[in-house]
Order: sequence, then structure tokens, then C-alpha cells
Amino acid sequence: MIKRVTCLAGGIGAAKFLQGLVRILPQENITIIVNTGDDIELYGLHISPDPDILMYTLAGIVNEEKGWGIQSDTFNCLNMFQKYGLETWFKLGDKDLATHIYRTQLLKNGFSLGEVTQKLCKSLGLKVNILPMTNGKIAPQILTNFGKMHFEEYLVKRGAKDKVLDVIFEGAESAHPTPGVIESIQDASGIIVCPSNPIVSIGPILAVKKIREALKETTAKVVAISPIVGGGTIKGPADKLMRGLGLKVSAYSVALLYRDLLDVFILDEVDTVEKEKIERLGMKAIAANTIMRSLEDKVELARLALDALDPTAY
Amino acid sequence: MIKRVTCLAGGIGAAKFLQGLVRILPQENITIIVNTGDDIELYGLHISPDPDILMYTLAGIVNEEKGWGIQSDTFNCLNMFQKYGLETWFKLGDKDLATHIYRTQLLKNGFSLGEVTQKLCKSLGLKVNILPMTNGKIAPQILTNFGKMHFEEYLVKRGAKDKVLDVIFEGAESAHPTPGVIESIQDASGIIVCPSNPIVSIGPILAVKKIREALKETTAKVVAISPIVGGGTIKGPADKLMRGLGLKVSAYSVALLYRDLLDVFILDEVDTVEKEKIERLGMKAIAANTIMRSLEDKVELARLALDALDPTAY
Repeated sequence: MIKRVTCLAGGIGAAKFLQGLVRILPQENITIIVNTGDDIELYGLHISPDPDILMYTLAGIVNEEKGWGIQSDTFNCLNMFQKYGLETWFKLGDKDLATHIYRTQLLKNGFSLGEVTQKLCKSLGLKVNILPMTNGKIAPQILTNFGKMHFEEYLVKRGAKDKVLDVIFEGAESAHPTPGVIESIQDASGIIVCPSNPIVSIGPILAVKKIREALKETTAKVVAISPIVGGGTIKGPADKLMRGLGLKVSAYSVALLYRDLLDVFILDEVDTVEKEKIERLGMKAIAANTIMRSLEDKVELARLALDALDPTAY
Repeated sequence: MIKRVTCLAGGIGAAKFLQGLVRILPQENITIIVNTGDDIELYGLHISPDPDILMYTLAGIVNEEKGWGIQSDTFNCLNMFQKYGLETWFKLGDKDLATHIYRTQLLKNGFSLGEVTQKLCKSLGLKVNILPMTNGKIAPQILTNFGKMHFEEYLVKRGAKDKVLDVIFEGAESAHPTPGVIESIQDASGIIVCPSNPIVSIGPILAVKKIREALKETTAKVVAISPIVGGGTIKGPADKLMRGLGLKVSAYSVALLYRDLLDVFILDEVDTVEKEKIERLGMKAIAANTIMRSLEDKVELARLALDALDPTAY
């Protein structure tokens, strides 16, 4: 079986998948290159939504119902911000704030985002290696009929209700991967693209030229799991973003976006009809249950992905 | 009666006195020059203990039992800091954190401490004019048998249990008063030195040369209320600090510290025996009930101070 995997991950969907993966592989054998394109500064604090979702989920402290934030959190600081007349659309819990305050302090003290993430993970007892895609800044801007805005503003503040016209990546081409990212791709015995938003979660990672190149060059197999099921999303605005970019909302469109990278594509069984069309893109396609309702579902999907990566299976 | 007063203030004792004063004078007629010598940076956040105590108390949201912090606050962020292995001796509540986060952000964005304090006061519905003594930095260091430390470290972290050898003011001589401070002393029809720690609360304010000079030059009368009652403190470590500086812990010692500034000194009735000795320092001395248990006590003490300032009463 596959020994050492590197995963490309966004937030909630990836976190669910990884909950299964860590039940099969030792955490030490898993590297996660996580999207930081959603990172945002609010109240002078550096917030990294996707890394936090992964950390909280894998540490077993996530608010399972929402998929983000910390369980049994309170919102007293946020309520006080409101008294001070500040905007409070981003729902920061009091426990959650500790992460952002500590991260901001460490960054101010000269630690890189990668080093900060390592410190946080260690404190939470995690042994997976979570690497922000870059220590620099890549913020996808969503161009809507109401103007250009940060993804979190589009998603949370305005409820993803504006018509998407384009998604613009600023600073992506020239961004440097965090130390360890390229090595983790080169050393992996398999690569997994988690079921995350292909536009604003996996998109920013692939927009880093050196990461994209390393993924193309690696001899390890690369598998992706479709976040699109039955022409829609399980969670999040991937459908709206894909439509805004002129793409049909389908598993096939996701495979198309990743076509130059993939060996295997796992799509949901409800989309079996798209299997042949996807295979014509030059990759193996596997239809399976990709909706992760239970821990068993998650483990099973992770095992399927690992099996698909195993070159001895071909 | 006195129309416009300027007060010198520390934290809890001053806040109680001011609760009485605002029941007599319109808030707009009160300027408070507050000690920022206890200001401390923790977790990258700028914390101003004394200004916060005054703001919270006058806004009616203070934790009355403790005398600091906000009522019904939670400590979820602090508990999370502990998970991250951070020191948590300074008890920051979740609501309270909003103040520090907002202040830090505003300072980072170029606002001065004075401007920040004004913004916070306005948001809390206050009309008193609270002025930090300086926009700069004056941090009294407490020299103890365990080394030199920040006052909050001495008081909160180590529980004021170390032997005090000296109190050192760094940066005081050359510090600039916040704009408005000197004018408020010149324009006041009376000055009140609140019942605060003479060493680390009033001390840092008086250590600013220009403030001390303005207080000496003003024609307005100056009254101080003793924070020492019956040879001890109501709250806080003033006794230990005074002893460390070689002073006897008494109302007389406080009067001695302020002797070049005062016209009137209000001491507690239990210390009536010291009255004559204090008057020999060249000021009027009034013995009264200075222990502010009820709102009535506070109002009565404030009225006594205002009457003492009234030149027509002499």
C-alpha cells in the first residue's frame, strides 16, 4: 500500500476526507498543502480559514455542525466589537480568536506562516504536516456584478448571492511555495487532490507556478475526488463560481480543470454517466460514494483514493 | 460651585470616586488624566488597564465585584491560549479582548493612544474626557528581590509578594503629555488627585515633567484624597510599594509625596490624628469618610472634594 501521501486541500470538504485518511495512514506520513487564498486580515488579526478548519477538524475540536470554528464556542468578543461599531460579518468565536491572536503575534515576531502553522498544529497535538501553499500572499478576488471583492466577503458577508463574472488571482504566478511543499510533492508515493472547491481552494494552490510544475513532473500518481455531485455542490459556492467562469457545473468540468495533472479521478456514483467522457480526457475514472456522511464513509473514500494511487494495482 | 475639574487618576479607587463625581458634575465638564504606566503588551495586544477600568466603570459595564474587567465576561480565548502553551496570568475576558484588539488595530493604523481612548469612550457612550497622560511610553519598573519587572508582572503574575526595593520610571522625564492634558490643567477651575496608588498610578503622571510643572503653576486649587486609610490600603499594593521606598504607610506620607502641589488633603476620619501634622506641610487637611462602600459614599466624597476646591469657601 501507499506509504507517504501529499494532499492538496481547501477547508470543510478536505477536512472530512482527511478525517478518514488519518484513520488509515499514520499522521506522520501525511503532508497537506493547504489553500491560504482565503486568508484575510480583520481587526488587525491574520485569519487563515482553511488551515484552521483542517487543524480544528483533525484535532477533534471543530464545530461539527458548521464544519468550521471550535465546538462550544462563545461570541462575546464579537458582540463587544459590535458595541464599538465594527463590522461583525465574519463570525469569530472567542476560542477561535486565540488562534488568530497567537498567529498574528508570531507573524509580527518574524515567524513565517508555515512556521506558525507548525507551532499551532503541534500545540493541538497533530502530527500531520500542514503546509500553507505559500508564505506570501495570494488572494483570489471575486469579480461580481457588485464589484471586485475578497472571497470571504463574497461568501460570508454577502452570502454568495452576487453574480460571479470572474475570479482573479493576484500575486499567484510569482508566489514562492512554502519550504517543504515542493519536496513533499517530489517525495510522495501518491498525491491526493481533496474534494475541495476547484476554483478558490485548489485553484490558488495550482496557481503557484512551481507547485503546478512539480505536480506535472512527479512520477507519483495523482488522484482527485470530485467536489461536484449530481451537478451541484455539497457545501460552498463552487457551483456559482464555476458558472461565473463559463463552466458547466459537473464532475467532468472539475476533471477538465485538473486534466494535465491527474492519473485518476473519483466521481460520485450518481454521476456514473460522466465516467466515459472523463476517461477520454486521458485519466482513469472511478465512480463511488463520495458523500461523507459518517466516519465509515470517510475512511472508505480515503481507502479508495489510496488504492487508486497504488501503482502495483495497475 | 466649581464648574470644570481635571482629575488625576489610576484604576479602581479613582473609578469609584469618579462614579460619585459624574453624579454631581456634567460629564462634559470633567477631564481625567489617566495613568498609562501599567500599559502592557501581551499576545501582541496593547492593554491599558487603568483607562479600561475607568471606561468600563463609568459606562456601567465593569465587573463590580472585581473592580476591573467587564461584567458577565467569559474566558474562552484565555483557556485556548493555555492550550497553545501561552502564559495566562493576566486574566483577559472575551468581551474585554475586543477593547484590546480594537485599540491595537487603531494604534497600528496610526491613531495615537489619546485618539484611540476618545474613540472607545465615544462608542461606550461616555462624555467625560479621558486623556492618557502621554501618547508615549512610561513603564515603571518594580525592582524586587527577584529582579526588575513590569508592574503588572509584579502585581498580577507574582501576586505582589516580592520585596520591593525601588520603583524606577523609565522615559518619564522626557515624555510629552497627550495634547489637551496641559490645557485641561490650565483651564480647570479645580484639580482633584483621586484616591489612587501614589507610587505607580499618580506617580507616573507626576513623573511627566510638563504635567508636574503645569500643576505647580495653575491658580486653581488642588485637592487630593488619601488612598491610605488606617495605615493600609483599601485595595492594591500601595503599602508594599511605599514601604519599599522607605516611606511609612500613612496618609501623612501621601501628603508628603504631593506636598508641593496641594492646597487641600482629604484623609480618612480614622486618621484624624495625622491632620495637624499634614497641615504643618502647608495645606488644609480635612478628615472624612473616604471608604466608598455605596454610591452615596462616593457622591458625598466627590461633593466634599468639590467644596474643598471652591475658592469662595475659603
